[in-house]
Amino acid sequence: MNKVAIVGASGYSGEELVRLLLNHPHAELVAVTSRQYAGQTLAQIFPRFANHPKAKALRFTEPNAELLAKQAEIVFLALPHGVAAEYAVPLLKAGCTVIDLSADFRLKSAEVYKEFYAHDHPAPELLAKSVYGLPEIHREQIKKAALIASPGCYPTSILLPVIPLVKAKLINPQSIIADSHSGVSGAGRKAELDYLFVECNESVRPYGVPKHRHLSEIEEQLSLAAGTKVIIQFTPHLAPVNRGILTTLYLAPTEHFTDEAGAQALGKKITACYARAYANEPFVRLLEGKALPDTKNVVGTNVCEIAWRLDPRTGRLIVMSAEDNLVKGASGQAVQSMNLRCGFPETAGLV
Amino acid sequence: MNKVAIVGASGYSGEELVRLLLNHPHAELVAVTSRQYAGQTLAQIFPRFANHPKAKALRFTEPNAELLAKQAEIVFLALPHGVAAEYAVPLLKAGCTVIDLSADFRLKSAEVYKEFYAHDHPAPELLAKSVYGLPEIHREQIKKAALIASPGCYPTSILLPVIPLVKAKLINPQSIIADSHSGVSGAGRKAELDYLFVECNESVRPYGVPKHRHLSEIEEQLSLAAGTKVIIQFTPHLAPVNRGILTTLYLAPTEHFTDEAGAQALGKKITACYARAYANEPFVRLLEGKALPDTKNVVGTNVCEIAWRLDPRTGRLIVMSAEDNLVKGASGQAVQSMNLRCGFPETAGLV
Amino acid sequence: MNKVAIVGASGYSGEELVRLLLNHPHAELVAVTSRQYAGQTLAQIFPRFANHPKAKALRFTEPNAELLAKQAEIVFLALPHGVAAEYAVPLLKAGCTVIDLSADFRLKSAEVYKEFYAHDHPAPELLAKSVYGLPEIHREQIKKAALIASPGCYPTSILLPVIPLVKAKLINPQSIIADSHSGVSGAGRKAELDYLFVECNESVRPYGVPKHRHLSEIEEQLSLAAGTKVIIQFTPHLAPVNRGILTTLYLAPTEHFTDEAGAQALGKKITACYARAYANEPFVRLLEGKALPDTKNVVGTNVCEIAWRLDPRTGRLIVMSAEDNLVKGASGQAVQSMNLRCGFPETAGLV
Amino acid sequence: MNKVAIVGASGYSGEELVRLLLNHPHAELVAVTSRQYAGQTLAQIFPRFANHPKAKALRFTEPNAELLAKQAEIVFLALPHGVAAEYAVPLLKAGCTVIDLSADFRLKSAEVYKEFYAHDHPAPELLAKSVYGLPEIHREQIKKAALIASPGCYPTSILLPVIPLVKAKLINPQSIIADSHSGVSGAGRKAELDYLFVECNESVRPYGVPKHRHLSEIEEQLSLAAGTKVIIQFTPHLAPVNRGILTTLYLAPTEHFTDEAGAQALGKKITACYARAYANEPFVRLLEGKALPDTKNVVGTNVCEIAWRLDPRTGRLIVMSAEDNLVKGASGQAVQSMNLRCGFPETAGLV
Repeated sequence: MNKVAIVGASGYSGEELVRLLLNHPHAELVAVTSRQYAGQTLAQIFPRFANHPKAKALRFTEPNAELLAKQAEIVFLALPHGVAAEYAVPLLKAGCTVIDLSADFRLKSAEVYKEFYAHDHPAPELLAKSVYGLPEIHREQIKKAALIASPGCYPTSILLPVIPLVKAKLINPQSIIADSHSGVSGAGRKAELDYLFVECNESVRPYGVPKHRHLSEIEEQLSLAAGTKVIIQFTPHLAPVNRGILTTLYLAPTEHFTDEAGAQALGKKITACYARAYANEPFVRLLEGKALPDTKNVVGTNVCEIAWRLDPRTGRLIVMSAEDNLVKGASGQAVQSMNLRCGFPETAGLV
Repeated sequence: MNKVAIVGASGYSGEELVRLLLNHPHAELVAVTSRQYAGQTLAQIFPRFANHPKAKALRFTEPNAELLAKQAEIVFLALPHGVAAEYAVPLLKAGCTVIDLSADFRLKSAEVYKEFYAHDHPAPELLAKSVYGLPEIHREQIKKAALIASPGCYPTSILLPVIPLVKAKLINPQSIIADSHSGVSGAGRKAELDYLFVECNESVRPYGVPKHRHLSEIEEQLSLAAGTKVIIQFTPHLAPVNRGILTTLYLAPTEHFTDEAGAQALGKKITACYARAYANEPFVRLLEGKALPDTKNVVGTNVCEIAWRLDPRTGRLIVMSAEDNLVKGASGQAVQSMNLRCGFPETAGLV
Repeated sequence: MNKVAIVGASGYSGEELVRLLLNHPHAELVAVTSRQYAGQTLAQIFPRFANHPKAKALRFTEPNAELLAKQAEIVFLALPHGVAAEYAVPLLKAGCTVIDLSADFRLKSAEVYKEFYAHDHPAPELLAKSVYGLPEIHREQIKKAALIASPGCYPTSILLPVIPLVKAKLINPQSIIADSHSGVSGAGRKAELDYLFVECNESVRPYGVPKHRHLSEIEEQLSLAAGTKVIIQFTPHLAPVNRGILTTLYLAPTEHFTDEAGAQALGKKITACYARAYANEPFVRLLEGKALPDTKNVVGTNVCEIAWRLDPRTGRLIVMSAEDNLVKGASGQAVQSMNLRCGFPETAGLV
Repeated sequence: MNKVAIVGASGYSGEELVRLLLNHPHAELVAVTSRQYAGQTLAQIFPRFANHPKAKALRFTEPNAELLAKQAEIVFLALPHGVAAEYAVPLLKAGCTVIDLSADFRLKSAEVYKEFYAHDHPAPELLAKSVYGLPEIHREQIKKAALIASPGCYPTSILLPVIPLVKAKLINPQSIIADSHSGVSGAGRKAELDYLFVECNESVRPYGVPKHRHLSEIEEQLSLAAGTKVIIQFTPHLAPVNRGILTTLYLAPTEHFTDEAGAQALGKKITACYARAYANEPFVRLLEGKALPDTKNVVGTNVCEIAWRLDPRTGRLIVMSAEDNLVKGASGQAVQSMNLRCGFPETAGLV
């Protein structure tokens, strides 16, 4: 059993990490920190876990990197951006593996970070060492990483369906339009008017148009896959569900087609491309037949559903994905990375 | 007071028509038909209207065109496609004005109708006479029309924001991508598993990809505006709200821009274009400042909200609209057409 | 046109008052105050009203009793309890009619107020002068009142179905159990974690058990009706809807019955009792046949639905009511009182 | 590994059984039947399980008792009432253990069955042999039962909090009032207008007043606990959540109390009573301090939360419970019974 800790365990991602780690066959949750809840037990703060034997014993503590480094081998950081470095630096020095769920170590460039996050990067020297924790793309690097930057929720829902197509040069990487709808937990557990029940229920709305922060990591990863700088269009929306992201992608295939026959020919290549990429992936589900992604089919799981359609009327490829923003889009994926890093079965604790 | 009747008043659009017409200052609702509810009062079937003085007196009847023609001057048809002609033909002959909420008279071409609706058009001779009931675009024709084909919900949410841009040649009409999320009432009051509460709640999902029926009328109207045949991309989704459509449009401006200065120059033209088109329209709301459309701000009203952003990173124009699919997207717009046709103030009964 | 003002127009009740008063045929909304939004227009803060001609002209101001007294004849106070007196005292002195939506003037006893609201009453001298603004019960007094204390949302949903039974001595007033479920707008527009979308969606939960503040006014009004001190049981719950209260009441009839025949005999008396009380009331709907109350049938209206069943197995009377907590339970009822006070038709602006 | 089958696996309870049994450490799901889906795989019908290795291999079959008896040792019946006997009789004869989720074997009396279910009991000879599968109450009998009648969802939420109080004679068993609000999955996966998204969303409503079918089993079990015939009051409501039942119980303690001191004295007895009954139960959570039940804290788990308050103003005891109607209220509890019957750890596959 590996000893693990969570710093910042009181938000929605932190809570989901608690859920996954309490039931993980190879990990022992030894510490959870929260300034706000220090002194209280997991059972008090998260009643849904209260029947777990450990929930009454484990108490939130004030975050203390030195102490955490003594208690745990793996430390998950579920903190706002800009704050994670404060813990990452000493924990790495002390030899811990750090899996950060914030945006702080996802980019290679401190300049791009500043452009999108509007403050200087707190530990630019770590950017070169961190690994982007998208296991389907960077599995081998994750296995050896000391600092894993777990991807954002929107980026995961976009990168998983797009990267194989970009790598196979089946689409023009500069053509990408991503239209995403996220559940409200994506906004975090923050006491703000905009996220009150009455403000979100019976509401569908865009936000962060046209330059959402997640563009930075999406474009960096796509540029890496394409071998050239990629700029994309991305529009996030808020939908009245607790969890789930549905992304619809509009892509320009490199091969032109104008009829059903052309669509079928290209379709075979796309089918083969996705099969090569994901047929053996435990957490990507390639839909078949008439099935289309639906957030309700992935909520609570670490799975990303993908389906696609070619439109001979427009010559475009439409790809759709669905994931749980808190699982494959955050905490589940972080645990998947931990499994890889620690040599556990990749699906341990995730099915 | 003009005498009006509703054929097929038991679905969601029919119910919304009842609501609007019961409270209309210049219309008297004299007949409502429903095979299913014949003999029952409005109050029994729609408890929410039960306190209206007329709701206990007015009973649903079996639909009978001959009788309706004697009772009413204006007849609204809220029937499934393929069925409306059966009533439209005799009602028009008898001199009634017919406002049809189905898709049957929205297209000029019986072939396109057959391509998208998969059956022969039941009354192709009427297609040339019908007027597409989008008041902001076809106001003058509506005033004189005997047969008004009230637009579909998705088309309204797409055509209102796009037509002024196309007419002003500010965008390439072949570039249009429309991503729409609709409330579940858009699927109608049908006892189908797919629309059960448990199947829709906590679910966001696409459907009808890539060739939804509404494409036919959207493309016909855009072609008319552009003066050339237009093909667009359109993806409908289902969101867990009762009412509302949020549409996000991805458009390629004809004027290229790559920086903030270019965006500002083009932005002035777009502002002017929308102002010319809609500054005096009572039911189009051009959002200003940081405001973005939100379905909750239009539900229950006949308003379509529009906002836009230029993205200097991609050179695209993003336009977003929100409407109530049952009001501006169906029954409210039909009443707006009635107001025009009858010479009532255009906003009568709609504010 | 009477000139009216709203103090504290930025909460959910205030917003609903704005909606009703903007469209009222005999009232002119001349001032809206809000510390938070002072300087901004109605259109900016409440986009849903933006198409109303007055919404762009009317700006929120800092609340100032002296100024308000010059501008308006009727002033609605939509403020938290404990604060209303600060405005009520000077406004009344200046000759305004004050309609207060807070709890501050609903009770006759400053001691009971302190017991339930945990602070001294700020203006106990006004308690004797205020009238409890439940029009169906206190219509004549409301017509002459300078200070109207508009009832709470839960109290309205309980008092309307229970008072006629108590007055007719058909039930034992000490037997009353009220189980209520309210939509989340009842908690107000407050940035608190408990009312976030994710915390309320997919959640049904009781709160304030067993001594909710509204008990004080419910019991005072029931005691008045019964002619003796009445103590009741009341449990509020939160349900994931924006608006609506569904109350289920468990009552012990004074007449015992143990079979269908007994139930029918008693049922006739109950039917007659409710008919006497409400047959001509425009805003109480007595359901017939198999119909039961449903919040969705009253949302957006000023109607309270009532149905009842006698249970020969237990000898109990079950009464159920549904209302919109923001309309009949707050702002609609306040406007109904204004209509009475000003001599307008009681339903003006409410249908 | 015990071989298990599910007859009628296409409803919501059936689907939840599939979820639990696919992941059960000691059970192997060998057959699932469904007339509607025969021939299709689990993965096709329930996409959310599609990543489970067995989901693509296991196909729905037509139900055939003879065949099932050869395949499985334990057979779960998730069928409508009136139909279960058709399978139970031959399966029991063939030596299978049958766990029935319908109401068919929950009562001891065929007459009461007919009174509440409006048809003759299809296999009255089995009533004496069946065991009511509420493990916290009938654990020892379940261990030896061939036919286990798994309790209804509402009954579980009422019996668990009430039985210990009745047995300890702390309450008057004739005083019980149960007010329950259920998620819409409780109505089953049926294509009926009443359960459409638009009809349930933004709606809270009672139904089945005053004589719901579940009264029969609740009263039989309470009578057994009390040693005398018990009649109770029960009102079910529908709330717009997918899952969860929140029950609020109004009870008359046998010990009178009129002040805080009396409440504390009685409170100690209630605390002790519940602790004796449930302190060691893995699936009952006795809430402490200010915590009250909330359906969101139990959804997806086999836990029933219980809290209570004494009201010195009325002398009543208010008890509240929350459960997931599809887990502790149906399929989870059925698996718990299977665990007992088969000698597995009681919590196997349920945490």
